[in-house]
Formats: sequence, C-alpha cells, structure tokens
Amino acid sequence: MDEFELIRRYFDRKGVASGVVFGIGDDGAVLAPSPDMQQVQVIDTLVEGTHFLSQTDPADIAYRAVMVNLSDIAAMGATPRWMTLALTLNKANQQWIEAFAIGLLEAADRYEVTLVGGDTTAGPGITATISITGEIASGAALLRSGAMVGDGIYVTGTVGDAAGGLYLLERDESDDELEQRFLRPTPRLEVGKALVGRANAAIDISDGLVGDLNKMLVASNVGADLDIESLPISEALASCFDPDECHRFALTGGDDYELCFTASDVYVAQMSGITRIGTINDSERLTCRLNNDIVEVDGSGYRHFK
Amino acid sequence: MDEFELIRRYFDRKGVASGVVFGIGDDGAVLAPSPDMQQVQVIDTLVEGTHFLSQTDPADIAYRAVMVNLSDIAAMGATPRWMTLALTLNKANQQWIEAFAIGLLEAADRYEVTLVGGDTTAGPGITATISITGEIASGAALLRSGAMVGDGIYVTGTVGDAAGGLYLLERDESDDELEQRFLRPTPRLEVGKALVGRANAAIDISDGLVGDLNKMLVASNVGADLDIESLPISEALASCFDPDECHRFALTGGDDYELCFTASDVYVAQMSGITRIGTINDSERLTCRLNNDIVEVDGSGYRHFK
Repeated sequence: MDEFELIRRYFDRKGVASGVVFGIGDDGAVLAPSPDMQQVQVIDTLVEGTHFLSQTDPADIAYRAVMVNLSDIAAMGATPRWMTLALTLNKANQQWIEAFAIGLLEAADRYEVTLVGGDTTAGPGITATISITGEIASGAALLRSGAMVGDGIYVTGTVGDAAGGLYLLERDESDDELEQRFLRPTPRLEVGKALVGRANAAIDISDGLVGDLNKMLVASNVGADLDIESLPISEALASCFDPDECHRFALTGGDDYELCFTASDVYVAQMSGITRIGTINDSERLTCRLNNDIVEVDGSGYRHFK
Repeated sequence: MDEFELIRRYFDRKGVASGVVFGIGDDGAVLAPSPDMQQVQVIDTLVEGTHFLSQTDPADIAYRAVMVNLSDIAAMGATPRWMTLALTLNKANQQWIEAFAIGLLEAADRYEVTLVGGDTTAGPGITATISITGEIASGAALLRSGAMVGDGIYVTGTVGDAAGGLYLLERDESDDELEQRFLRPTPRLEVGKALVGRANAAIDISDGLVGDLNKMLVASNVGADLDIESLPISEALASCFDPDECHRFALTGGDDYELCFTASDVYVAQMSGITRIGTINDSERLTCRLNNDIVEVDGSGYRHFK
C-alpha cells in the first residue's frame, strides 16, 4: 500500500490553506509560520482496545483523535494550524478508511487545521497517531508551571460526563449526550486563546481532574484547596448517576478535555462557561473538601479521613 | 503510566536547544523557527513484525525510527530541528524503554534534533511513531515534481545493502556491514542540503529505487532511462550475493534511505558520493536497461522482454 496514495485518496482536498507552502504528496510538508509567532507541537495516539472499543465507528475514532490533540493546543492558548497522521491498521479495509477520513476531515474543517502529511502502516491493531502544530505569539503560551498562591482554580464546561458516557458505553447502556461527550469531546480552543494574558497556568483534563490538577501543582510548586461541592456537574450526568458517582467521575474520570486553569479572580470575572472550584495555596499539596470535611480522593473515588 | 514522567525520565536532558522555547513537560512544545525559514514536517511509524523483528535491540528500533524520518527531511533539503515521539507498548518494560531511549538520544545527538514532546500508550504490539519538524529557506525545498527532460538521475551512496542485510537477518545469517545498513541507515542530510539550488527533484529511497523513482517520474510528468549496470553496489553486497541478486536488492529492495535526485549534470559534477544511474526523458515511463537490453523490473527482480 502506497501511503501517499492512500492519504491522498481519502484525505487530500484541493484548496490552499494559509501558511501551507506544500502539503501532502512529498517527503514532508513545507510550512510558513507567521512572523512573530511561536509554534506549539503536540502528538497523541489512540489505540484500539485501550482508548476506543473495536466496534467504535471509525469516524468517531478519527474525530476524537483530532480533538485529543486540539485539546493540548487549547491548553497552551495556541491556534491550531497543521496536522500529520500516522495510521496503523491490521487490514486495509476501504470502508473503514473512508469512514475514518470523513471523521478526520469533519474535525479538521470544524477547527480549521490542515492535514499536511501522513504515514500508513500495517500492524496488529488499529493505532491512530496525530501530531498538530499550533501557533502562538512569542512568550504567550500558557504553561502548567505558573500557578500563583491566591489564584482561583477554574474549569471550563462540566466535568465527569465523558467518564459517565464511557461507563454506559461499556455496559451497552446509552445516554446520547454523555456518549457524545466521550466520543466527540470539544477542545476549548476559544477559551484557551482568551486565557492568554489572564491565566497563570493551564492544563487540559485528559487523565482526570485530580491527577491533572496535581501535575499543575507539582509543576508550579504550590498546593491547593478543592471544593468538591462546587464541581460543575451536567444535568445529563446527574440524571444517570447518584451524587457520589458524579463526583467520582468528575474527580478521577478523565477524557473530559475541559481546561483546568488558575488565575487572579479579577482577570476572569467577566468570562462565561467557567466555574471556580478552588484556590491555590502554599501548602504544596492538594486538599479536597466535601461540605467542609477533608476527604481523600483516589482512583475509586473519595473517602472521609478517620 | 504518566506519559510525561516516562518521557522525562528517559528522554529529557537538561540543556537549551536553539529555537526551543519550551520542550518536554507541558501540553505541547513551544518552538521559535528562525526568521525567513519555512518548516518541513514529517511523520513515520515503525511497527513490530512489519518493520522490525520482535527480537531487535530496542536501541536499533529507536535509532532507525529517527533515521527514517530524518531521511524524509534530507530528501526535502531541510535541516532537522525538533521531534515528537508516540510510543505504543504492549507492556511497560523498564529495560526495554531504557535501551530504546539510548538509541533515540544517540540518533538525536548525532543529527542535532531535539525531542520536544511525546505520548506513551498501551497496545497490542510495539509501535514507534516519530514526527520531525525541519527548517529550510523559503522556496528552497526539494520536491519530487521538478524533474526536467535531460536531467541526469543520481543516487547517493550504494543501493541494495539494507535489503541484503534484512535478507541475512531473517535467515539468522550475518554480515555486519549489511546488517548495520538495515538497522542503522544514514540519512543523507548533508547531501540534501547541498542539493538545494542544484537538484530539480529529489526523493528518498524507502520503498525501493524503482518504486520511488517512479513516484518522482509521475509527480514530474516525465519518463526515464535507467542503466542497471551503473547502479552503485557495495563490495559487502557483491561479496554475499550474485550480480542478479545484487541488482534485485538495489532496484526493488527498499530501506536504503539513500537519496535519488535529478539535476543538470553540470550542477553536480563536483559532488562526491553520488552516482549517475540514468537520464530523464519525455517518454512518461521508466525504461530499465541491462547491457543495453530493455528489461522489465518487478518485485521479484527483472526479466528480459521476449
């Protein structure tokens, strides 16, 4: 199978994207970033059996693979520009590839990122790796390491929905809204860009709020108080699960691709679609409170201290 | 497994690389290309069982994964700058990862390319995807589509060695030089850069000389005469195989990662380490000649026309 022919056949659309001097069809793409811009480079892989179920619609796999990467771009405050795809397949199934291409291009169109190259290989299972290059003004990138004592801790949207959706999917139960939150997450690109110059630190929630927040605390050398009662839980999640389960999904579920960031409250007071869930302090550890009691959070949920 | 911790533990070395504003450890890398430069983006995957044998030294897998990508950068005439790694493993084996990291960093050091991020996932087999960003002066990239009627066709180094080495490796026979040519190919970065402004078209030989030359002819809308007798065959290959086998490896074997390019002969007359193997013509197809007889080349070698 000729990788470029395959890529071109399914993924190449004519038309000129700004900044792409030469896209698919040569050994590499030729890209021209804007003057005074820096670049953000991300790469993420989805593996059959690990990140998606074998029966998942290939369009959903492709769409999600792009979103997972775009979420990293959003967490940096950058604007996505170009992506490359490495696709490993156990058999070349034309129908599968067509459906995958539809999902990929839908994602690319929606978020204005251009596919500029790729590699297709044969292997034991399906693996989709996407690498995205984004741009940002010099020095403006949102890092994990900037959280300041006294900052408010915020999240975008609602948390826990994707984990709830996956839970239902794995049991052949269904809730369309939660399922879509898992299969078709929304990268918070607009919020990410709006946070440049306002937030002190940002990370996207891929592994779970507590785990990702902890990474930010370690990188920033600070601690935090997190108020579990204040977590934004969707009506869809609350209608399918009891409050303890909702909190467990929200705290440790992952796959939300919402942003968690810290900022001086005054800088983000006018922003909509965000919720304040805690405060950065100088303790160097994360303290979670439920109704003012300190609770311990791990992979299976939280428990009250004795 | 925390991807960043894993990547940082094995792959992160302190030190500042030019153009890297922020490397490993955030959602993405922040890169600052030089003024007046364009970028070349490539991605390639090596899959266990498809591109390497399960018992292959992980250091060799990593080294080769970098070289395969660097060869694409070389074929564009660009200078490599930054790379990202997506590694899928069936089990997290510390020894394996350490050896892989050694090979990766050896390759990175040798060719001055900086690892700026990565993603580690679990899957059914080992898959290593590397994406490299290279830079080149605006408008200078060597494309496949520029071959001109009357151009000489050239290759760098010797061809067929990697296929001969793989043939021996698969049969548990051994020739150190040929084996190394397969496991540790040399990307022709210096030649690639020297060809900017001299060559009209270039491609790297990954799938086999005839297949890759044909891609260049199609992209350039020209034909060619190829003189099989003039193919540069190494002493190592000639000492292990008969002439017909040597030619078959050289024409169709692949994995050489030498460059094939076309140029007006006068522009490359002073270059060393290259061999003229044919001429571009206006026939729109590739004609291979052996001792002036036209022969037909396919995957199993060549045969004389009746």
